[in-house]
Amino acid sequence: MSDVTERTSDPLIAADRVTGTAVYNRAGEKLGTVDNIMIDKVSGKAIYGIMSFGGFLGIGENQFPLPWSQLSYDKRLGGYVVDLDKRVLEGAPSYARDDRFEWTPEYGRSVDKYYRVPSYWD
Amino acid sequence: MSDVTERTSDPLIAADRVTGTAVYNRAGEKLGTVDNIMIDKVSGKAIYGIMSFGGFLGIGENQFPLPWSQLSYDKRLGGYVVDLDKRVLEGAPSYARDDRFEWTPEYGRSVDKYYRVPSYWD
Repeated sequence: MSDVTERTSDPLIAADRVTGTAVYNRAGEKLGTVDNIMIDKVSGKAIYGIMSFGGFLGIGENQFPLPWSQLSYDKRLGGYVVDLDKRVLEGAPSYARDDRFEWTPEYGRSVDKYYRVPSYWD
Repeated sequence: MSDVTERTSDPLIAADRVTGTAVYNRAGEKLGTVDNIMIDKVSGKAIYGIMSFGGFLGIGENQFPLPWSQLSYDKRLGGYVVDLDKRVLEGAPSYARDDRFEWTPEYGRSVDKYYRVPSYWD
């Protein structure tokens, strides 16, 4: 299916091909990429986009879970746009890529609270 | 994140770990596995689960796109349940895993029509 998902005009993307989809700020500058999506098993709905910012902000290769509501897909750019200030991202919850990271309701709530969105976990 | 997604009690699953989640029939017999999920880029909602049935039904390793509404997550089983007759599956739209398969609105509509669900593409 490699043909399909590389076409930005296609409305669907295979979950295993999400990695590398670009994330931009409102000014259209590339911030990083979506590395993964956390999906609710029951509803099939994306709850968090897991982003990395590359070297941007000196954050290195940390993984930043963003509530999905913070990500808007921009067909023209072929990627997601976040309307977040640099300082907000700098202080955002993240974890090291190599961590055997454990996703808990408490962690999820702290992420949702940070971005001031209704919590998935309540 | 490998620890997390292997716990069936966790409500979230990383998109890149979906591969291999079991699919059962109503009798609790394992039919096959979810190999992938096709996600709407904008809404982040799962639209199709891409299944394979292994050797079951002699269908070999074909890929079967199922409208997500046909899949119910069963926490006890730790996998998805489909309420579909063997004959329905035998005649369902599928494509070879190695095909450079092209997902078109026409193909999507044929899948939705086959399973008699409102079409994502209309």
